[in-house]
Amino acid sequence: METPQRKWNVESSSSSKNAVNPIRRIVDKGGFKPNPNKSTISLSIGDPCVFGNLNILDYANDLLIENIKSCKFNGYPPSTGYEFAREAVAKYVETPTSKLTSKDIIIASGASGAIELAIGVLLNEGDNILVPKPGFPLYECTSKTKFINVKHYNLLEKQDFKVDLEHLKSLIDDRTKAILVNNPSNPCGIVYSKQHLLDIIEVAREYCLPIIADEIYCDLTFGEHKFYPMASLTDKVPILSIGGIAKRFLVPGWRLGWVAIHDRDNIFLNGRVIEGLVSLSQVVLGSNSLIQSILPKLLDSQNTQVIEWCSKITKTLESHSKLTVDMLSKAHGLKPVHSSGTMYQMIEIDCSKYEDIADDNEFVGKLLEEQSVFLLQGTVFSLPNFFRIVFCAPIEKLTEAYERMIEFCEAHKKK
Amino acid sequence: METPQRKWNVESSSSSKNAVNPIRRIVDKGGFKPNPNKSTISLSIGDPCVFGNLNILDYANDLLIENIKSCKFNGYPPSTGYEFAREAVAKYVETPTSKLTSKDIIIASGASGAIELAIGVLLNEGDNILVPKPGFPLYECTSKTKFINVKHYNLLEKQDFKVDLEHLKSLIDDRTKAILVNNPSNPCGIVYSKQHLLDIIEVAREYCLPIIADEIYCDLTFGEHKFYPMASLTDKVPILSIGGIAKRFLVPGWRLGWVAIHDRDNIFLNGRVIEGLVSLSQVVLGSNSLIQSILPKLLDSQNTQVIEWCSKITKTLESHSKLTVDMLSKAHGLKPVHSSGTMYQMIEIDCSKYEDIADDNEFVGKLLEEQSVFLLQGTVFSLPNFFRIVFCAPIEKLTEAYERMIEFCEAHKKK
Repeated sequence: METPQRKWNVESSSSSKNAVNPIRRIVDKGGFKPNPNKSTISLSIGDPCVFGNLNILDYANDLLIENIKSCKFNGYPPSTGYEFAREAVAKYVETPTSKLTSKDIIIASGASGAIELAIGVLLNEGDNILVPKPGFPLYECTSKTKFINVKHYNLLEKQDFKVDLEHLKSLIDDRTKAILVNNPSNPCGIVYSKQHLLDIIEVAREYCLPIIADEIYCDLTFGEHKFYPMASLTDKVPILSIGGIAKRFLVPGWRLGWVAIHDRDNIFLNGRVIEGLVSLSQVVLGSNSLIQSILPKLLDSQNTQVIEWCSKITKTLESHSKLTVDMLSKAHGLKPVHSSGTMYQMIEIDCSKYEDIADDNEFVGKLLEEQSVFLLQGTVFSLPNFFRIVFCAPIEKLTEAYERMIEFCEAHKKK
Repeated sequence: METPQRKWNVESSSSSKNAVNPIRRIVDKGGFKPNPNKSTISLSIGDPCVFGNLNILDYANDLLIENIKSCKFNGYPPSTGYEFAREAVAKYVETPTSKLTSKDIIIASGASGAIELAIGVLLNEGDNILVPKPGFPLYECTSKTKFINVKHYNLLEKQDFKVDLEHLKSLIDDRTKAILVNNPSNPCGIVYSKQHLLDIIEVAREYCLPIIADEIYCDLTFGEHKFYPMASLTDKVPILSIGGIAKRFLVPGWRLGWVAIHDRDNIFLNGRVIEGLVSLSQVVLGSNSLIQSILPKLLDSQNTQVIEWCSKITKTLESHSKLTVDMLSKAHGLKPVHSSGTMYQMIEIDCSKYEDIADDNEFVGKLLEEQSVFLLQGTVFSLPNFFRIVFCAPIEKLTEAYERMIEFCEAHKKK
């Protein structure tokens, strides 16, 4: 450059401008004003640790402490994770019909890091990915930072949030490169049946599209509802399955997730997808080494104390789910969709039943201002006239929040 | 799509194909064959933990264990990091002339995560960034995954790896958006003087280019060599400074780094760079919560036991550096560049002095095959005819490695 530029002209990248994560934006920024006369009860963020009632088991902490003292796990693990950690995850997520080895696992910085790897390896700028609506906004946020287009396929709110398969098919074009399926579903709290998963897989097979299966809530299912890993249901469709320890072990801050590569007929191998995942992992270098170090014992299927603890946590969440439905069914104008898993409950709002509430944004805003109960509006998940409850809080807190909500609905009842 | 595509055609993204991190590739893949009759001594990767001689102080482990037991740090921190952790980093990295608050700090998943944020916020696809040659290959790797072009400015190997300022200027064009400066330097092991940093800053000021200052080795300087934070030397040029605990506290596996935002005249603020960094942090959600939780005590400048421990580690590394130069100066055909900091030593190879060694790749390859000493060739850092030594191993290991290297050089001496 002959003549230096004489003016400062620094501007943030388009990628950063595209990085809009509505949940984090709302939660990190705050800016809402709760009623100062009532203690705030926040049922908004999918973090089971907020209230201190749900804690990781002592055994896991003891493992971690032992490994910290050893000073053996402070160095760089390989970018894909310690070999032993990858092997532990492989054993944990493989199924009788879809066996895995350590090489099929990439350890990532949380499930969100794993989602970034999966989306980043399968799609180019200008390609599109099909994601559920309502759905977890991070899929869109991650895609947009990479200039990948997002098409939303509808979940049918009147049919337990099943995928609208015809709508899904209608969105596919020649730049569609993957279908993202989230089961059990955030925010819907729904666990899909085996048959419905087979129906989704059939679309992927027909159109030859790989599936990214976000299965981070796989361990949290209620009653007779059973979780089927998508990879266990097909030997034709290649699948990248996303998992992690955040939700099962109640440690989202620990940032440990993974991508499990379920290849079929070497489709991923020949397409250099496996190589691509390894390369991408080398850019940011994965997850904390200490947390990785405890995976073999934590994920061991023979470890009865861990298994029993997990089962107890699921039962607790199930009882919270039941309380939520029971109490909020009595609130004027609200209709809970029955959860079959996760830690979430979607509630439909019939605004015609209220005097002065136009939509979910107003419901959530006024509820906070009057009753100091903090929820996320359905609009955040592209589902207007619903809101999401995270039902991890202790029973007494939940009861209090729901009583306040019932009072709120009554106060705004159409005369 | 009317007719479904009937053929599988999955291909990894261009971004993943661009993600080539030569160090991780070599280190993760291995594939070299050491001499089976000699124990391998690996002085290749910048990980102080490999040999077990350099360990984090017990005090830090104790803090971590205490916080694990409390179960208070298992949930999601804000995506930019816990407020108290950001504040601790702000106090740690601010300078008398460049004061910071918690809002100026973004906690990231290691310094590599911080580098990705800084590059990602300042550059668009097709823009270019100026990076040092020789230099840490991750800058290029990270940029390429985002289709950002990289131009290499020369460091002058005959002048203590100073920046060739005229060459630097000659590379600037209207798509140049940032200058990356790495001081103290990996792989060169050089700490720049105040005057040289002022000269680099002057170029940035003249061309109105922000600086990304990778200062991860700031605490590791030897003898009279003093580290000057770039931000302390200018009130005109906005700077994103990269740091972390990996190297100072010998815990690269813990994955905790940061971006410190040193704005000037609101250039970053008005350019939405600060907002952009926050948005990008919301995509992957940062660093492990437990590690963040110990930062206030770990980085406290009044904490004499930490300060004394750090000083001892630096002295140890300095003695290793001295041994390296002393011993390898005696090796036929080798010329060590004197390190003034970090944990690295560049050694120049005069291949004309050997019978059968053509270049640095062959030197390193044959050394491994014959003497089982594993080094990284200069080519990895774009500096042929050099190799890099990481001198963190215990003195007896280093001595043995250097004796073997002297023997190797002797054996290949031109007759």
